[in-house]
Amino acid sequence: MSRTVLVFGAGKSTAYLLDHILERSTEEELKLVIADINPNSISQEVRSHPNCKVIQLDIFEDKKRKESIQQANVVISMLPPKLHIKVAEDCLSLGKHLVTASYVSDAIQQLDEEAKKKGLVFMNEIGLDPGIDHMSAMQFIDRIRDNGGKMLLFESFTGGLVAPEHDSNLWNYKFTWNPRNVVVAGQGGAAKFIQEGTYKYIPYQKLFRRTEFLAVEGYGTFEAYANRDSLKYREAYGLQNALTLYRGTMRRVGFSKAWQMFVMLGMTDDSYIIENSQGMSYREFVNLFLPYSPTDSVELKLRHYLKIDQDDIRWGKLLELNLFDDTKKIPLVQASPAQILQFILEDSWTLESHERDMIVMYHKFGYELQGIKKQIDANMVVLGENKSHTAMAKTVGLPVAMAAILILNGRVKNPGVQIPIHKEVYQPILKQLESYKIQFKEYEVPYLGYNPDSVAI
Amino acid sequence: MSRTVLVFGAGKSTAYLLDHILERSTEEELKLVIADINPNSISQEVRSHPNCKVIQLDIFEDKKRKESIQQANVVISMLPPKLHIKVAEDCLSLGKHLVTASYVSDAIQQLDEEAKKKGLVFMNEIGLDPGIDHMSAMQFIDRIRDNGGKMLLFESFTGGLVAPEHDSNLWNYKFTWNPRNVVVAGQGGAAKFIQEGTYKYIPYQKLFRRTEFLAVEGYGTFEAYANRDSLKYREAYGLQNALTLYRGTMRRVGFSKAWQMFVMLGMTDDSYIIENSQGMSYREFVNLFLPYSPTDSVELKLRHYLKIDQDDIRWGKLLELNLFDDTKKIPLVQASPAQILQFILEDSWTLESHERDMIVMYHKFGYELQGIKKQIDANMVVLGENKSHTAMAKTVGLPVAMAAILILNGRVKNPGVQIPIHKEVYQPILKQLESYKIQFKEYEVPYLGYNPDSVAI
Repeated sequence: MSRTVLVFGAGKSTAYLLDHILERSTEEELKLVIADINPNSISQEVRSHPNCKVIQLDIFEDKKRKESIQQANVVISMLPPKLHIKVAEDCLSLGKHLVTASYVSDAIQQLDEEAKKKGLVFMNEIGLDPGIDHMSAMQFIDRIRDNGGKMLLFESFTGGLVAPEHDSNLWNYKFTWNPRNVVVAGQGGAAKFIQEGTYKYIPYQKLFRRTEFLAVEGYGTFEAYANRDSLKYREAYGLQNALTLYRGTMRRVGFSKAWQMFVMLGMTDDSYIIENSQGMSYREFVNLFLPYSPTDSVELKLRHYLKIDQDDIRWGKLLELNLFDDTKKIPLVQASPAQILQFILEDSWTLESHERDMIVMYHKFGYELQGIKKQIDANMVVLGENKSHTAMAKTVGLPVAMAAILILNGRVKNPGVQIPIHKEVYQPILKQLESYKIQFKEYEVPYLGYNPDSVAI
Repeated sequence: MSRTVLVFGAGKSTAYLLDHILERSTEEELKLVIADINPNSISQEVRSHPNCKVIQLDIFEDKKRKESIQQANVVISMLPPKLHIKVAEDCLSLGKHLVTASYVSDAIQQLDEEAKKKGLVFMNEIGLDPGIDHMSAMQFIDRIRDNGGKMLLFESFTGGLVAPEHDSNLWNYKFTWNPRNVVVAGQGGAAKFIQEGTYKYIPYQKLFRRTEFLAVEGYGTFEAYANRDSLKYREAYGLQNALTLYRGTMRRVGFSKAWQMFVMLGMTDDSYIIENSQGMSYREFVNLFLPYSPTDSVELKLRHYLKIDQDDIRWGKLLELNLFDDTKKIPLVQASPAQILQFILEDSWTLESHERDMIVMYHKFGYELQGIKKQIDANMVVLGENKSHTAMAKTVGLPVAMAAILILNGRVKNPGVQIPIHKEVYQPILKQLESYKIQFKEYEVPYLGYNPDSVAI
């Protein structure tokens, strides 16, 4: 008996998701229905698959949306996060399972009780980060605990970067995902974490100066800055008694120190509009954040303001972005500093169609076993194949597709609003991901309890 | 025929206000009614004056409030700003004039049309800053214009400081007004101003590093950092075509560079709660913002983090505040970093009862007259007398009292919600303030168009 998987939204992260469902469709007796507002953007290969049907659908058309959900057995929402709730409410009233790769919103969380009553699985945060980070971390943590170990330390880092062979600029960075998230990263409050039993706080103005270093075999050294709330999954992971909890974002070494220039200039601010932004040159934009002088150059004013020596590589990073160019113009009307900075960065940091992205994830697990403190470090590197089949699309889309099939096959016994931290979910999915070369290498390392390289700068 | 002046709220800024009204009460045939929730805090000298009556009143008691307003001829509200609207609405319905020293809120502004219809004067922003700054600036600007000059530049700075003979700590600062405003100063968005026709923006993380210097004859050198919005009174002052507009806050030189340490540590953040703040030592508080180390001292970590050399005076400023003391404890429960910092600062920066405060105001007026660019600098220094009769209370309270009498005497011809930028208001009040030695010294200086000392640091 054939089952229907309904996918809302066939955006750029769905290539592997759709491929995986169609590849499994004959064996698993699946029909795939893709509902998108602009179905023409879906590849011919997918559209012409015998088990695939594409429908044009505006998510705000209530009748059509409900009808399509009514005919599905499991629904995957790849829509922008704030739109999930419309789909979720229909899933609840029509008795359908739901899968998303997004953070559990308060609105979605409120559906938990009723979903449980109806025996429905509402699986969220099952992409890359959040997603593979939850699953892989819980696999290690459960294994340590099953062996009698007691967790002392958990640190977890993820980065979406450019593949080494296309890592060709001084920043060692190109946009492989939402550029806006990169520009406003870290804003909205101090980063909070725990080190050796003590709470620690880093304000935005120091966030990019408190990095730690991480070496990945075969890929060199990376750095990481702290995420806003490292304590978010403390209870979910059962780490209430761990002495160190830290989550961060990975970049190539030197990125953060250079990014700090934009922070200190005020260019990442998204809270106000620059007067007359349209038609302004890159150089004029930079000068907005420097004092007036009738004689001194923008270059010297900036060097002095940020104390950039002549032989500082950060200077080359600014030049590479054409920041002092007075012929390059900003086309944006009524734009914030962050929007203008994003425009300037996209001018330099956009992946070419032949360039590949790279995902890096790094976990540290410190624990005590039979009175001895130990540590396991584990890391994963995934490389993209091409512009549509990126490492990001692979690592976000595959777990979503696998979770949908798992749910269809009745393998997820616990109903309700959830994230993939239970064995019944992460075990089969991590196993399947291995066949796509999405897997962790692990290393036994001495337990340190803190990062000795993390001397504050 | 006697007239009644009703004052709501007899807090710490009202000593001179009440004295002035009572001093003028016989000559002007005034009755003073003071309505306060806690009238016992009013001095015996004021209470026992034959023309004074004190009533106990909770501003939320509608009937009593309306009755007292009904019997008044002019109402002065010295309540916390958000409570003015209750009084203002009654004044409007009962046909009474109103005076406050607070910024015009949107709610108050909306009463403008009806106040005008009824011929009522709702005078606001007639304290020190806002207040004396408006009046003195407009007096200079109007004089320049009346002589045929065209305004090119306006800069204005105010500081509430400690009098030179009690300026006894390394910060050259003590709290003379609301400490909270000092701790959170500059937060909530970039500072915005215009220099030589170009918009300029300073983010919070650089606000205290972009100071300019100001010399006041007989009082030495001060520094100033930019206020949030220097363009606020651009239209009100008729300065739409001025090339430079800048408003700032004055401190003694070196304060801002030292304050920047708190900014970069994250101690001025008021947006989150520190876990377990109660009972934490000052030293533990500092360590929250520094990386963990099993061996390095809090002192060395902080020196390294903020790059403080051994002979840097900023270090002495931190020691003076007992920041590294592990016996000094924070009593605050569930407090934000800003609240804890305020507590620590109040421990050191509170005025003793014999110590006097000082108000400094500094204006720069650049203009063109008959093709020649000129500049007038003007400054005012006011010293407090004692703990209740502070310079702050004098400069805030006297203009309020004088405005109330002016209104009673029919000298304010323009009704409606307003600030004191018109000659009919500022001329008589500035004249009267001179007899209290509240007056500006003016200097002709070369027009520079920008501050050559303001090299960004």
